[in-house]
Amino acid sequence: MSPQVQGIGLDRVLEPDGALPQAAQRLDDSPEIAPDEVRVAVHRLNLDAASFRQLATKHGGDGAAVRREVLEIVAARGKMQNPVTGSGGMLVGVVDEVGPESPLGLAVGDRVATLVSLSLTPLRITDGLAGWDGRSEQVPAAGHAILFGRSIAAVLPDDLPGELAMAVLDVCGAPALTDRVVRGYDAPTVAVVGGAGKSGSMSLAAARRAGARTVGVVPVEAEAGLLREAGLADAVALADARDPVALASAVEQALGRPADVTVVCVDVPGCEHGAILATAEGGTVIFFSMATSFSAAALGAEGLAADVTMLIGNGYLPGHAELALDLLRTEPAVRKLFERRLAAEAG
Amino acid sequence: MSPQVQGIGLDRVLEPDGALPQAAQRLDDSPEIAPDEVRVAVHRLNLDAASFRQLATKHGGDGAAVRREVLEIVAARGKMQNPVTGSGGMLVGVVDEVGPESPLGLAVGDRVATLVSLSLTPLRITDGLAGWDGRSEQVPAAGHAILFGRSIAAVLPDDLPGELAMAVLDVCGAPALTDRVVRGYDAPTVAVVGGAGKSGSMSLAAARRAGARTVGVVPVEAEAGLLREAGLADAVALADARDPVALASAVEQALGRPADVTVVCVDVPGCEHGAILATAEGGTVIFFSMATSFSAAALGAEGLAADVTMLIGNGYLPGHAELALDLLRTEPAVRKLFERRLAAEAG
Repeated sequence: MSPQVQGIGLDRVLEPDGALPQAAQRLDDSPEIAPDEVRVAVHRLNLDAASFRQLATKHGGDGAAVRREVLEIVAARGKMQNPVTGSGGMLVGVVDEVGPESPLGLAVGDRVATLVSLSLTPLRITDGLAGWDGRSEQVPAAGHAILFGRSIAAVLPDDLPGELAMAVLDVCGAPALTDRVVRGYDAPTVAVVGGAGKSGSMSLAAARRAGARTVGVVPVEAEAGLLREAGLADAVALADARDPVALASAVEQALGRPADVTVVCVDVPGCEHGAILATAEGGTVIFFSMATSFSAAALGAEGLAADVTMLIGNGYLPGHAELALDLLRTEPAVRKLFERRLAAEAG
Repeated sequence: MSPQVQGIGLDRVLEPDGALPQAAQRLDDSPEIAPDEVRVAVHRLNLDAASFRQLATKHGGDGAAVRREVLEIVAARGKMQNPVTGSGGMLVGVVDEVGPESPLGLAVGDRVATLVSLSLTPLRITDGLAGWDGRSEQVPAAGHAILFGRSIAAVLPDDLPGELAMAVLDVCGAPALTDRVVRGYDAPTVAVVGGAGKSGSMSLAAARRAGARTVGVVPVEAEAGLLREAGLADAVALADARDPVALASAVEQALGRPADVTVVCVDVPGCEHGAILATAEGGTVIFFSMATSFSAAALGAEGLAADVTMLIGNGYLPGHAELALDLLRTEPAVRKLFERRLAAEAG
């Protein structure tokens, strides 16, 4: 096998032949590990929001039916991948066994969160999810999961509440890529569309630390107030990101010129043209929203004769977890925004 | 109006209010030009392949019906934008009038091809398309079209047949972006997936000129033969781009290591994971295929823990037309491949 395709779990794919674990119909969930694998004792699953919403809607809020279907999916597929949305989530657990050739640097007893999706992680549930009422994305669970050589897991820090650390790790790709891109410009301006959200506030903090003058763009006054109070951005602008002229004008007015880097963190369709139009010639747009349309972005830039670099937001960069946790620890405003969101979700 | 939103045709949008010309339902096609506009006397439309296929299929190959619908679309919308596919095409014509503030550098009498889509170009047809049988994407036509301040048009060169120049200009974004990205690496390796096609062969030529060692990947032996004979790539590899392991292994075997830059030029869905897996850590994937799925790329890179930069191929870069025409003139192998494809299309 060529080195490039090792450590990605190909030996765990049962069907179809030759598929990668994420695309596979069924994975081998057996507890015996290969030399480069790690086994984790599962404590909690964190279902992807889109996946949980689909299940809850399908079963009309019947928690027992939702639980039954999650158990059926995991038993049938050897992983928790919603067959309709295709999405998974993440999990928290404790390292149980480490193969002698694992490159992940984990030790038995480490409390970890997986940063690769549940949709490609071999998983077996052993407690029938008895501790879960099927009414929340947070799923207490017992069982085991397998990490591959090239999987990603973060050791949960002792100094932060578990939920807070998980919420930060869930979006840690955004500040890391923002940091890398912003450092490529000299005294840049940065616009973060959806700046009051989790990935948005992290991106604003990362951009400012990387030397940028920033504007956070939000759709409603309530979010603008939150963001102003937090003091995370040099300016706060109100605009509907689906209205290209409104978005571009708001960014230009707030910054005094277009943005060198525009970061799209808002999960609504139709923000591509506004983001392109708000960006200076030679600038970069980073699309983190899963609602981004590839063709709308490609054709939009061509139609506007816009010489902008357009990046598909990659959730992985070396050091991304450390950078995000460091931002949380050192920027009180970020921590406050996250705690407020977590409280609102719990309420 | 803020400078950032000038020259993009907002004053030509009749409905809905605030839309960009591409998203607009209807444009103002009147011949009177604003100070930064240019009017072109239309000689020929070149319908987008997807658009023409949709129309031909809908009307069961009835050319008269296809022609009638194209006339209806242009009359109703003030532009040739297929309401089903959303796509347009390009046009060839002669510059008729140049506004005193037009930045495009065109002169009355210039024979030009538009490099922005027909889907955002104000257009009026005056000859009922009498010279067209409705059975081909090439549409002889009379009428006028309007170029905005920030539109893009290339003066057609005298030394090349019109059809050949048009075919090259249609894909000129690919070699330009490939050139820019490849020059950011030191002695790089480049894989072009779909290397025997128009944008693929151009990208191979651009990559080699920019200093890369290249492999062209094609799905069938017939195309491999063509590409080997042309000598455009340092190596030729056979692989199904939808099979991630096969693609990554073929690239790694041909180059001796993964590709620093992978260029996806093949218009089939499901090539995202293979392209990511074929690319070295720190490398770049450029997606030019409109069949690219944003979420498949984003989730794929994360699932593979791949530190690769993923670019949405932008059809516009300053100087893109000149670079592509120069490649055609100076690389006999590129010209031969293009002429062969044009002959095949002509049947």
